[in-house]
Amino acid sequence: MNKYDVAVVGVTGMVGSMILKVLEERNFPIKNLYAFASAKSAGSKIKFNNRDYIVEELNDGSFERHIDIALFSAGGETSKRYSPIAASKGITVIDNSSTFRMNGDVPLIVPEVNPEAVNSNCGIIANPNCSTIQAVVALKPLHDKYQIKRIVFSTYQAVSGTGVKGVVDLKEGIAGNGPKTYPHPIAYNCLPHIDVFLENGYTKEEIKMIEETKKILGDQKLKITATTVRVPVYYGHSESINLEFKKDFEIDELKKLLNCSPGIVLQDDPANSVYPLAVNAEGKDEVFVGRIRRDYSVKYGINLWVVSDNVRKGAATNAVQIAELLIRKA
Amino acid sequence: MNKYDVAVVGVTGMVGSMILKVLEERNFPIKNLYAFASAKSAGSKIKFNNRDYIVEELNDGSFERHIDIALFSAGGETSKRYSPIAASKGITVIDNSSTFRMNGDVPLIVPEVNPEAVNSNCGIIANPNCSTIQAVVALKPLHDKYQIKRIVFSTYQAVSGTGVKGVVDLKEGIAGNGPKTYPHPIAYNCLPHIDVFLENGYTKEEIKMIEETKKILGDQKLKITATTVRVPVYYGHSESINLEFKKDFEIDELKKLLNCSPGIVLQDDPANSVYPLAVNAEGKDEVFVGRIRRDYSVKYGINLWVVSDNVRKGAATNAVQIAELLIRKA
Repeated sequence: MNKYDVAVVGVTGMVGSMILKVLEERNFPIKNLYAFASAKSAGSKIKFNNRDYIVEELNDGSFERHIDIALFSAGGETSKRYSPIAASKGITVIDNSSTFRMNGDVPLIVPEVNPEAVNSNCGIIANPNCSTIQAVVALKPLHDKYQIKRIVFSTYQAVSGTGVKGVVDLKEGIAGNGPKTYPHPIAYNCLPHIDVFLENGYTKEEIKMIEETKKILGDQKLKITATTVRVPVYYGHSESINLEFKKDFEIDELKKLLNCSPGIVLQDDPANSVYPLAVNAEGKDEVFVGRIRRDYSVKYGINLWVVSDNVRKGAATNAVQIAELLIRKA
Repeated sequence: MNKYDVAVVGVTGMVGSMILKVLEERNFPIKNLYAFASAKSAGSKIKFNNRDYIVEELNDGSFERHIDIALFSAGGETSKRYSPIAASKGITVIDNSSTFRMNGDVPLIVPEVNPEAVNSNCGIIANPNCSTIQAVVALKPLHDKYQIKRIVFSTYQAVSGTGVKGVVDLKEGIAGNGPKTYPHPIAYNCLPHIDVFLENGYTKEEIKMIEETKKILGDQKLKITATTVRVPVYYGHSESINLEFKKDFEIDELKKLLNCSPGIVLQDDPANSVYPLAVNAEGKDEVFVGRIRRDYSVKYGINLWVVSDNVRKGAATNAVQIAELLIRKA
């Protein structure tokens, strides 16, 4: 079996350290691992497969060695500056930031949905937004079979989506202290504000969900709107998704289709209080789908409740799955 | 000024005690107050306008005295049994349970929306569901002007909607103890399960939102769907509302219309992180509306974020406002 030289950029962050964990769990075939972070974390140690690694400061010379794949998760600015450098050295970058996601020559990949896009990369592959990833895993089989016409997203997103500082803000808020990261308290509150606001009144997070969903499903004609909300949950994004189809469906057949689709676990037995829950999704890689029911307000519509671990499937696991596509192709 | 004999049934519960508080705050003209509760609470004392009252056990003889208005908030079973008895004695019942809401001869009233319905009561007036009340306050002026075609509700509902035991479940959950009231932990979690599940996969709460909205707005042709979710918030329901209109609108004109409509406070300045928040709505009587933006996925649509104190405007305040309509009429 081939082994690969892999770099993780932003290795001390929440997603970066989860990427290490997922690489271990999935026995990703690694020859040499390079751990990069900012100057602040340089010199600290991380553990990988029971071996210590010294974290190196990321700089212009970081990619002057043989690396096959670099998983970036150090924020948009770092990606913007260093991804092209890495790509120019022949390294395939899997970038977790939003920087390149909408670029025409950057594939945006969820392996259960559009794995074939991996073949058209020019050195950079983008990992989608957390709330988009879990949504499209559930939407893909439905769109293939019933043709989605319109989507209304309302999200219930965990503070870990903001990284360690989001988790700290909720913990501190529960302890009675004011917020440092969010503009308002997140403890016992819902903030309809994720990422920055744009001119049109939408947040960048909402526009990401709209545009990334179209790109990943490969359908620019999809009609989509979104309201994204931060809730006092540590791990696991939940989503209320309303769908309108072009084609009719049998609800039992639709449930069966979801149940048999890759990456999805159906949890839909309301009589026994079985439905997807953030606290149950934590630590798992699947997308959990339930509360599936016909929407009688349109001709062919349904409502869904979709939950997944935003740090794993919403970020780290999806990035590692993309790396797996790359080496399968190689 | 006339004064009235008023009974509060379920006076020791979360909504009952808030009704007393709101009656005081609004200087409701009371001659005699009667405080009723179950046998469990009978004999205990409550304070009203600095006077002590002994809580009486509710029984078949409770209404054998002069009472003008009885505000019921003691659960569906108590309402079902005792409201008709009270009404038969000439008492006007304002009932907070869902028991009579959909009865053809029971008006379902939100004073900002359909105050005229008070005239057609046959002894019982129903107070709507908390999540419906705040929604219709925001929807009414929009429906009048732009004709709502379809509504998609996704709610973020506080544990106080379940009464004291919901609040206890969240507190205990935060302390690390398992749930006693909800089927799953509510701390750091979202439960897409409010009230019981029906055959069609919807919860009763979702059907209440759908049917009560139609009844209060007086439009059975409205297309509505809903997903109702309990979140780890103590007070204040938040709602993501997606609307499709029949008529076009100017977004600034629409905001102005909401701002000038009764019971609504516009909080819509995203550039300064101003939008409705549950923790800010607590203790207030208004319905807060923000995040207003055009939905580009339909011809004439918007998204809204609507927040209100579910125990006050969603229950106690609305009930007292109905009582005020009754005495204004008298």
